[in-house]
Amino acid sequence: MLPSIYRPAETFVLGLLGGGQLAKMTAQAALQLGMRIAVIEHGENSPAGVMTKLEFPEGWKEAGQLGQFIDASDIITLENEFIDPHILDVIAEKRLVWPSPATMRLVQDKYTQKQTFAAVGIPMARFAEITTKQDLFDFGAEHGYPFVAKTRKYGYDGYGNATIKRDTEIDMVWRRFMEGEEPRPLLAESFVTFTKELAVMVARNRRGETAVYPCVQTIQQGHICVSVLAPAPIEEELQRRAQEIALQCVETIEGVGVFGIEMFLTNDDQILFNEIAPRPHNSGHYTIEACHTSQFENCVRAVVNAPLGSPHMRVPAACMINILGERSGSGIPDSVVDALKIEGVSLHLYGKKDARIGRKMGHLTATGATVDQAFARAKSALDGIVW
Amino acid sequence: MLPSIYRPAETFVLGLLGGGQLAKMTAQAALQLGMRIAVIEHGENSPAGVMTKLEFPEGWKEAGQLGQFIDASDIITLENEFIDPHILDVIAEKRLVWPSPATMRLVQDKYTQKQTFAAVGIPMARFAEITTKQDLFDFGAEHGYPFVAKTRKYGYDGYGNATIKRDTEIDMVWRRFMEGEEPRPLLAESFVTFTKELAVMVARNRRGETAVYPCVQTIQQGHICVSVLAPAPIEEELQRRAQEIALQCVETIEGVGVFGIEMFLTNDDQILFNEIAPRPHNSGHYTIEACHTSQFENCVRAVVNAPLGSPHMRVPAACMINILGERSGSGIPDSVVDALKIEGVSLHLYGKKDARIGRKMGHLTATGATVDQAFARAKSALDGIVW
Repeated sequence: MLPSIYRPAETFVLGLLGGGQLAKMTAQAALQLGMRIAVIEHGENSPAGVMTKLEFPEGWKEAGQLGQFIDASDIITLENEFIDPHILDVIAEKRLVWPSPATMRLVQDKYTQKQTFAAVGIPMARFAEITTKQDLFDFGAEHGYPFVAKTRKYGYDGYGNATIKRDTEIDMVWRRFMEGEEPRPLLAESFVTFTKELAVMVARNRRGETAVYPCVQTIQQGHICVSVLAPAPIEEELQRRAQEIALQCVETIEGVGVFGIEMFLTNDDQILFNEIAPRPHNSGHYTIEACHTSQFENCVRAVVNAPLGSPHMRVPAACMINILGERSGSGIPDSVVDALKIEGVSLHLYGKKDARIGRKMGHLTATGATVDQAFARAKSALDGIVW
Repeated sequence: MLPSIYRPAETFVLGLLGGGQLAKMTAQAALQLGMRIAVIEHGENSPAGVMTKLEFPEGWKEAGQLGQFIDASDIITLENEFIDPHILDVIAEKRLVWPSPATMRLVQDKYTQKQTFAAVGIPMARFAEITTKQDLFDFGAEHGYPFVAKTRKYGYDGYGNATIKRDTEIDMVWRRFMEGEEPRPLLAESFVTFTKELAVMVARNRRGETAVYPCVQTIQQGHICVSVLAPAPIEEELQRRAQEIALQCVETIEGVGVFGIEMFLTNDDQILFNEIAPRPHNSGHYTIEACHTSQFENCVRAVVNAPLGSPHMRVPAACMINILGERSGSGIPDSVVDALKIEGVSLHLYGKKDARIGRKMGHLTATGATVDQAFARAKSALDGIVW
């Protein structure tokens, strides 16, 4: 689609920091547009690493192959919000990287994230910075139990969260996070009683043009996203409100790339901001089959400053269900044959070498006339995955 | 999706003979299913070659890297029906290759192709083997003018065809094909007056399970497929008949893989067989966005003997338009920005290094509520491609 910036006789190379499934699907979109990809990761033959000759499997820690990766790439994006911002600064000295180091610093810390959005009136649960153990007691006294203690950085899929149901649990939680080898700074957040969890993907390019994806419902089990219903089976007015909140978040931080905004729908129909991820998101995988432009393609378009594509659905409904490992051992399921037989279902397997219980190994997306039909198809297919 | 046959601790590797756009899109499907790919081609950085570390750019002629490619692959398929069948025999000694060498031999020769299908009653234009120049005169005398002389092998996109409008042209045509360095054996075929050209993709796996795609209309300009309308805007009864003919062709030759069957719709509503290609086909690119399972994914499933996926459309209508080079020089268009802005259009650029006038450089697929809407979107997007 574009010539290389640095080697004009060659094709543009999109650099991917990280080689997991998000990088893989972003790579797929870039390749469809006629680009090439470079991948840096710690380890060979990652899901995205197998897709290119420009694979840098020695990673970016302790210099590693970072310099070679930077040199091979024209513009760089990422799949993992936990990249040390110093690494991004090193990259930014030589190459455009999106989302920017500034965006990443802001978003990586859940406390600064919330502060930034609260300051512009985005509705969310009450929260506070936690510096001492007493702060936890004070928060519980002021806002009630249960409440949630979260690490400010590096938490995902529930890791780094602790729900505190009574003050007698505070000592243990404090020890867990703050008295180990590496203290993990915390924030506290009111527990939200929600009826549904929602998510909206938003893409924004360097010109400030945005594309807002449908509001979907995400269903979690044990803190891991398990299934996604698109569009969310809630009133259109609520879907629109969720989309507005999501858009406002991305515009507030002037983010470039694609962002996943997670929200709660409370039992009195309030929509509260929960978290933002500055990268393609599990809740947006359905967009590959169900929307005119996938979240991955809009991520690519955004970082190269091309016009964004339509985020609208091209089918009435879709359902994505994650394929989580059910044993350790080989990353290849024993059988997917029965899943392949289900009408209207697309199977995605990420090609990870090793399975673990609960590890995201792939996903299934079903399209259909209604959310119920799509869900039934996807569930049926999931039953056909044998580990 | 599958472990390697020969290296069970590793992931399955699908080997692709040829690295052009058909191999690229087949590779995309294989990667989505968690497989890896190996590509052999004459030249580096082909559209599929950039997608793998297992790239063998020295090709298969004069041994080249054929042995290394075979060794790296678990099962092999192809994108080009003109592979010398001896190469396929060499491969078949060590690896499963689909379609089989026997299928390829039969299909590569347009005369044996037609004989085989005529023998089971598939309707087609009258045709005859041409051994001497007199045979051409005799054919014209018996079946009338104009008629078409075609090379039995290696013709595609109109290359190797000559329409003979009167007997005075026969000398020149004979000289062109038979009196050069390498005589090109011929067949003669009655000229068909058609109202539309149709195509149907059929996938068939090693178990004999089949998937028959919608009947589409293909629109040619100067012998090159330019656009495809899905489904074909003809009566459903005629669509079904075309699908039946296509299915019968593939079952007759017991083909394994995916096959593109081209047909004519005559002005008295007859459907006549024209040609079969034993590989993914230009007329099937729309299936990526518009069908539950693309032709490429079903090709992969067929050759590994997995159950085939649904060939049904998940949107009401689609239109594909080829992006053909409009100048020589860089394979990257000057601009695609305006094409990217059109709602409902997916842009595919193959990543070929060099453009030539008329060369297939990519395609656009639009989906829509009707064929007319899809066509309008695709046409609009094509106008936005600037060479």
